Amino acid sequence: PAAGPTVAAAPPPSAGASGASVGAKVAKAASAIKIRGYTQLRVNEIVSGDKTAPDGQSRLRSVQDGSIGSDTNFFIRRARIVLQGDLGHGVSFYLQPDFASAVNSQSAGERRDNFVQLRDAYVDVALDKAERFKLRFGQSKVPFGWENLQSSSNRVPLDRTDAINSAVPSERDLGIIAYYTPARVQEIWDELEEKDQKLFGNYGAFAFGVFNGQGVNRQERNDSLMAVVMGTWPMRLDGIGLDGQVLEIGGSLLYNKVRPEIRSGGVSDGNFKEKRAVVHAILYPQPFGIQTEWTFGRAPVYDTAIEAIEIDDATGGYVMAMYRVPDFGAGRVIPYVRWERYKGGWKGALNVPRLDTNDIELGVEWTPVKPLEFTFAYARMKRAEADERRAGIAEGDVLRAQLQWNY
Amino acid sequence: PAAGPTVAAAPPPSAGASGASVGAKVAKAASAIKIRGYTQLRVNEIVSGDKTAPDGQSRLRSVQDGSIGSDTNFFIRRARIVLQGDLGHGVSFYLQPDFASAVNSQSAGERRDNFVQLRDAYVDVALDKAERFKLRFGQSKVPFGWENLQSSSNRVPLDRTDAINSAVPSERDLGIIAYYTPARVQEIWDELEEKDQKLFGNYGAFAFGVFNGQGVNRQERNDSLMAVVMGTWPMRLDGIGLDGQVLEIGGSLLYNKVRPEIRSGGVSDGNFKEKRAVVHAILYPQPFGIQTEWTFGRAPVYDTAIEAIEIDDATGGYVMAMYRVPDFGAGRVIPYVRWERYKGGWKGALNVPRLDTNDIELGVEWTPVKPLEFTFAYARMKRAEADERRAGIAEGDVLRAQLQWNY
Amino acid sequence: PAAGPTVAAAPPPSAGASGASVGAKVAKAASAIKIRGYTQLRVNEIVSGDKTAPDGQSRLRSVQDGSIGSDTNFFIRRARIVLQGDLGHGVSFYLQPDFASAVNSQSAGERRDNFVQLRDAYVDVALDKAERFKLRFGQSKVPFGWENLQSSSNRVPLDRTDAINSAVPSERDLGIIAYYTPARVQEIWDELEEKDQKLFGNYGAFAFGVFNGQGVNRQERNDSLMAVVMGTWPMRLDGIGLDGQVLEIGGSLLYNKVRPEIRSGGVSDGNFKEKRAVVHAILYPQPFGIQTEWTFGRAPVYDTAIEAIEIDDATGGYVMAMYRVPDFGAGRVIPYVRWERYKGGWKGALNVPRLDTNDIELGVEWTPVKPLEFTFAYARMKRAEADERRAGIAEGDVLRAQLQWNY
Repeated sequence: PAAGPTVAAAPPPSAGASGASVGAKVAKAASAIKIRGYTQLRVNEIVSGDKTAPDGQSRLRSVQDGSIGSDTNFFIRRARIVLQGDLGHGVSFYLQPDFASAVNSQSAGERRDNFVQLRDAYVDVALDKAERFKLRFGQSKVPFGWENLQSSSNRVPLDRTDAINSAVPSERDLGIIAYYTPARVQEIWDELEEKDQKLFGNYGAFAFGVFNGQGVNRQERNDSLMAVVMGTWPMRLDGIGLDGQVLEIGGSLLYNKVRPEIRSGGVSDGNFKEKRAVVHAILYPQPFGIQTEWTFGRAPVYDTAIEAIEIDDATGGYVMAMYRVPDFGAGRVIPYVRWERYKGGWKGALNVPRLDTNDIELGVEWTPVKPLEFTFAYARMKRAEADERRAGIAEGDVLRAQLQWNY
Repeated sequence: PAAGPTVAAAPPPSAGASGASVGAKVAKAASAIKIRGYTQLRVNEIVSGDKTAPDGQSRLRSVQDGSIGSDTNFFIRRARIVLQGDLGHGVSFYLQPDFASAVNSQSAGERRDNFVQLRDAYVDVALDKAERFKLRFGQSKVPFGWENLQSSSNRVPLDRTDAINSAVPSERDLGIIAYYTPARVQEIWDELEEKDQKLFGNYGAFAFGVFNGQGVNRQERNDSLMAVVMGTWPMRLDGIGLDGQVLEIGGSLLYNKVRPEIRSGGVSDGNFKEKRAVVHAILYPQPFGIQTEWTFGRAPVYDTAIEAIEIDDATGGYVMAMYRVPDFGAGRVIPYVRWERYKGGWKGALNVPRLDTNDIELGVEWTPVKPLEFTFAYARMKRAEADERRAGIAEGDVLRAQLQWNY
Repeated sequence: PAAGPTVAAAPPPSAGASGASVGAKVAKAASAIKIRGYTQLRVNEIVSGDKTAPDGQSRLRSVQDGSIGSDTNFFIRRARIVLQGDLGHGVSFYLQPDFASAVNSQSAGERRDNFVQLRDAYVDVALDKAERFKLRFGQSKVPFGWENLQSSSNRVPLDRTDAINSAVPSERDLGIIAYYTPARVQEIWDELEEKDQKLFGNYGAFAFGVFNGQGVNRQERNDSLMAVVMGTWPMRLDGIGLDGQVLEIGGSLLYNKVRPEIRSGGVSDGNFKEKRAVVHAILYPQPFGIQTEWTFGRAPVYDTAIEAIEIDDATGGYVMAMYRVPDFGAGRVIPYVRWERYKGGWKGALNVPRLDTNDIELGVEWTPVKPLEFTFAYARMKRAEADERRAGIAEGDVLRAQLQWNY
């Protein structure tokens, strides 16, 4: 939907001439690369609670934000650039690196921050003229969990929830997805977008995908593929007297075999089966909104009793209420409150430690001018640390602040 | 040769004013940065043969494609962005990172994929008005082997051959090159490009370069430089009754001293001398083409008998036939068959293991629309694994597929 | 101050519509991303002196240039791209990665070069209409030392000096800075820039900032912040008969607590206090210039007597004379001579080794055409190696050459 002028791309190596000889269909290709992005600068302060703890006991930490802890100050959570473009013939591409990826084991064993690593690299190929049905090839978001699909630049709270994110830490994987979006769904989404609602992005209403399933930017370690199916459906509530309101409901299923990384080095010898379901319901904030997702599943988790990874329940979700404050001349203001709960493994970390999360966060997102978004939040956290060598639940109060700039 | 609009670059720090004071020659500089790139998504499946093997014995693996093996699925082989521009005064620059570079020894000793690392970073300075003679400074391709110089986005088969690539794994190094292109050569190349032929890129017909010689993105480890000289000459065959056909022949010589990385850590104490020659002949496909290169040399290789690196023969090459199917309305189609052979060391790997490669690959490249290229291939491979601790030859049949998108 | 056309950025995800609903202030935002950069290719040759030394004794090495040593040839010192843009509402952003960052502990324990890592990622928010007073959030240069603030692409000599750079190796950190520039200062700087003078960049005349203080792209390791205050003031010397000449004087103060990385792994258990002051005076070269900075402080340094890090003096500075050769039709030529001295710790290296630097460098920067800058230099160096396990001072003569291309 970009209206402005765009960055013209140089033609691929032999573009100038190729067209002439391989026919009009090939010749018409023309690419235009657009550049945009955003950066998030954060500060978290544990104002009371288990900032530190003895060995063997959980400290207050979050798998969603490495700067919640002791000895932390400013932190770049994300620094992204997106290169994207319509390549003609119903083909478009998307390439998004992150400029805030750490590399471990550098000088003195310390990590170095802010290396550049890929997040997305995919191409969309539309199979019909209206571009309702398309195939996506490459690295992209896994269609499991509405919250996972929505860009962090659009999410109102600072972090995703452990429950919904536990299926696909970092949200992405490498594979092929088929997306389909009926015209009536697209129409409602377009209408919401015009009202400045925060949608979940350019994903279809229905999706089926297969992926490596080992986690983004990790080496595939088995021959099996992860399969994911998703559906979501926005509905106008005019019929029940709520004129202009829209409710969106849907869900996903995921089946995977994974070899988690283990503390003794490398990955587990055998595969662990993972079966998960998630459902979502969103009443878009006009001005009052409510959003909830819940996930159920069986997935790997470290069992401290037997000192090994086994399969167990992975269950949790969140409920969030938010309010779009009517325009009063100082930008957009959205206060929110969210409760989240999760009990289950976290496969992104060594040995798939068991999480036991029970957080409440109150916050407000303030967008004084388009390029700047401030978020301030207070969180009451109860969490198991994502380390199977530490037991129990840590508690505490955390003050949180973020400045996001969009370019 | 880009005709379209270009991305205008911001002037360098003090550009606006500098011109005025340092004279017209400096003032005329104007830069325009163009962006383009391509990504390759791959799947390989060993359908029969030595997918695995006991310790000490070769498994079917390729130094050209890390996703040929067991426990593999989707794989991003390359994700590239090129920034390039004409800076005026006969000066132009080229900067190409790859978004699919691995970093080793991360969590649990596992690697993390898809970090961004430099491939090319060079500046060309033309010494004459017609820009036939130019100096290239920086990191760029080493002019040894026609196949090495041709971009992977233009190559018909999926991979380069072990023999030709063994001299310069990853094709690049850091140094200075002088290129010269006679007008009559440029004229033939321009004509071929207009016919959508896949050339070897913006390298001259004659080249002489000096480089660090330790391998791209590796630390220089001796005081000596690698020297390379190249010549290539396209000839019209109209005179012998083959109207419109073009044959290109040429070759390169390389002299180097290198300190290979060794399994016990670091690099070898002493230098190993490397002397290589390569010759090529290409009949451009109009519509039937044939392409062959052969290399001869003496270079380091691990000798399992004496358990040390020594100097031995490095010999091999390939013959490829291809056919440009006349336009039938479904894009460009190029079937090909290639046989390759190599016996010699692979200095890109620890301890310079001995390769013994004997592959036949049948495939087809299909470009339905300009931005998309599908390649499907069947390969019958016989290969020694690039690991001096594994002996013998592995064999097998591999089905291969790649989707490349150009932007 | 870029006048040319710019790269138009795609609007952020929901841009098209957002404006309409959150009021005119938000709606007016418009972003335009500009791209520029530069690359530096270097060669250093120690022509006489302590190129090598026995264990325990200093070799001739520099913390400023890793390619001064034995077994070195070509080296990419910096390869930078800047993305920047005015985002409207007095908001602008700046994102600069470096394409020449090494990653250690890769194959055979060897490093791999030329990965991409962030240098700057900040947003400027002007608090007044004239944009004299602004807040900078994110990763950016620490306002300590005129030389540290000036871009390497603008500096006449090849490297910064150890003394001034020792406070902030790599010059940057993560934090928040307030900048203020009075109109009379801006006016003089604009005038100098029009005369093609090399200024120190878009930093204010007065600054106060707080930062993590652990060093750029390193994990914060304590709860305290580094505080820095700076002032600089350009003055016309017309009043004392030096018509058109400008003298700029100023200085900075820095207070920090840091946990240096130690050889046994990780960082020091306790904090080390760091207090530094620096003063500068620059007579801009019209055509003869002189530039000097001196720093005094107490900072951590390894004491070989007690085999531990302690607090000691960190003192040094430089004097540089330069001359802008009047235009003679072959571009801009600036010969220079610089003497530098430093005694104190280098916190960027393991165990904060003690430096004892006493260098003289004679050189010339030649800009034949705008995009190309050649620098040739001869240096007489006396230096302690930045390794607490090596004692004494190494001496030697070094020939140095650099080609920088600007795009």
